[in-house]
Amino acid sequence: MADKLSYFSISSFEFLNGDKRDVKIAYKSINASSPKKALIPTCYGGRVDDTYTFHDTSSSALADYHVIVVAMLGNGESSSPSNTPDFTKSLDYQDQIRAQHALLQHLGVEKLDVVVGFSMGAQQAYYWAAMYPDFVKQCVCICGSAKTSFHNYAFLEGPLAALMQSSDYENGRYREHGKKPTRGIKAFGRAYTAWLYSADWFRQELWRSEKVSTIAQFMKVHEDMVGDWDAEDLIILGRQWQAGDVGKVGKGYEHVMREVISARMLVMPGSTDQYFRYEDSEMEVSLLQNAELATIPSVWGHAAGGGSHKPDAEWMDKRIKAWLK
Amino acid sequence: MADKLSYFSISSFEFLNGDKRDVKIAYKSINASSPKKALIPTCYGGRVDDTYTFHDTSSSALADYHVIVVAMLGNGESSSPSNTPDFTKSLDYQDQIRAQHALLQHLGVEKLDVVVGFSMGAQQAYYWAAMYPDFVKQCVCICGSAKTSFHNYAFLEGPLAALMQSSDYENGRYREHGKKPTRGIKAFGRAYTAWLYSADWFRQELWRSEKVSTIAQFMKVHEDMVGDWDAEDLIILGRQWQAGDVGKVGKGYEHVMREVISARMLVMPGSTDQYFRYEDSEMEVSLLQNAELATIPSVWGHAAGGGSHKPDAEWMDKRIKAWLK
Repeated sequence: MADKLSYFSISSFEFLNGDKRDVKIAYKSINASSPKKALIPTCYGGRVDDTYTFHDTSSSALADYHVIVVAMLGNGESSSPSNTPDFTKSLDYQDQIRAQHALLQHLGVEKLDVVVGFSMGAQQAYYWAAMYPDFVKQCVCICGSAKTSFHNYAFLEGPLAALMQSSDYENGRYREHGKKPTRGIKAFGRAYTAWLYSADWFRQELWRSEKVSTIAQFMKVHEDMVGDWDAEDLIILGRQWQAGDVGKVGKGYEHVMREVISARMLVMPGSTDQYFRYEDSEMEVSLLQNAELATIPSVWGHAAGGGSHKPDAEWMDKRIKAWLK
Repeated sequence: MADKLSYFSISSFEFLNGDKRDVKIAYKSINASSPKKALIPTCYGGRVDDTYTFHDTSSSALADYHVIVVAMLGNGESSSPSNTPDFTKSLDYQDQIRAQHALLQHLGVEKLDVVVGFSMGAQQAYYWAAMYPDFVKQCVCICGSAKTSFHNYAFLEGPLAALMQSSDYENGRYREHGKKPTRGIKAFGRAYTAWLYSADWFRQELWRSEKVSTIAQFMKVHEDMVGDWDAEDLIILGRQWQAGDVGKVGKGYEHVMREVISARMLVMPGSTDQYFRYEDSEMEVSLLQNAELATIPSVWGHAAGGGSHKPDAEWMDKRIKAWLK
């Protein structure tokens, strides 16, 4: 990427919960001179720089787009519990989208040709289409849903409970002692890992690598997966995720899906995703006015949509490129 | 059930890890005068009295069998960390089966017509067939596998980490302070819950009941699901489960499955079980000499095999009855 991380400040930003705070939004702007505008919000556990941009080569789907990668509030790059004293206690998808909208106005972007998002990024894409139907022409929703399913909610309770009940989280008082809840964050990672891939992926032993020859070693490596994340950031965004429902921006879920969202939508669930299930995406596509389903055929589970597994990333890139034409 | 809980003592029982201890095995013997003998070992989190026996009515599959329900070592009824000072530090499926074999000899049972097991009970049934091929004529393996899959291993790490890293588990020193690691056990329950059912089950909102109207309430009820279990009992049996592999009793997994197990086997995975996957059962049936697959068509996930959901229990009962004839 040619450009480096930038920050946009908003004074007295009003959160959905009523709090007002000065916030900064971290982002990266790539190929800014292009008239075609794409926004990519980060996912849970994601930073701007490890977000897959579909922009790597001259034949990539977004190669000739102005791509703006934006960090969610709470991700540790934008304003977050971890970097802001007295940060607000809850975040809502609506906060993210309104802050991103302000950023785009600041950048002089008047319309988005496409919002591309993975996981919580896909949920943000749905919210974009619901909150600013005239601003967003198209959305690509990868391994995400317009409404967080009850199963998805229940799964998230596991890692969050492991963190919040851990011996060094200390009911949130760990900061007073000037230390990180390392055991809690490792337990979070351990409780998340089996969900991230698929049963097929484990059966095919794709967890093996040069450094990992036993499943116990694999778990050890993965408990550090979120090691650089802050406990409060994980919690505030986990709660945002659990409460996700585009219906809240209008007259309920079905109404918003059928009547409010008018953007052209490409919905890309993973065929073996254990928590953003393809069945939910099929149902959501059936509600939308102008949506196409493109299920990623992969044993990589939820991780298929993240871009780190090259064949899946290439499959998505081709599919998105063809759809955008 | 007509008979009450009984105990069988074994002096200086030698565990696979080399330890020797006096142990007692808790069991219940039902309809003892019948010449047809059925053994039902408990599952993880299971007690003798809440084990489904296929014996409730005169038309039940095991109605005319002598049914022996036996508590696993470590379940809190048989000798366990929770009820035995200086209990051994690890358990193996082979320990369970050898102890149960001793119990059956004591009861004068010379052959088992059938071993019926659910979950870890199914794993015990496989071990029975592998360790005492001349003693066991038939096995019914419900929602279980002869070898614990890597995915299954990884999922178990979540609840176990939530418990073992919890603030009141205190690295196992909680006993010294005379209290239970309540928060840890609740976190265990919370990290287990989404795995127990299926995404379809959550989508159909089958978690709703008279007492539960929100998913948050449901999680709260379920965090107490294992509330009467002891932390060390959960851990020692969780580790036994993770290490399950019938191959260890002979020359490796494939050899034992193909050459050693000769019993007639009915393998009953749940169609939506998230951790004992039907795909694994299909593979295992293909290895066995004399096995039949009967996948339980249910959205109840792993819980379909436990007997608490009546339509699934009736489906299994009919299927087992027909197969036993």
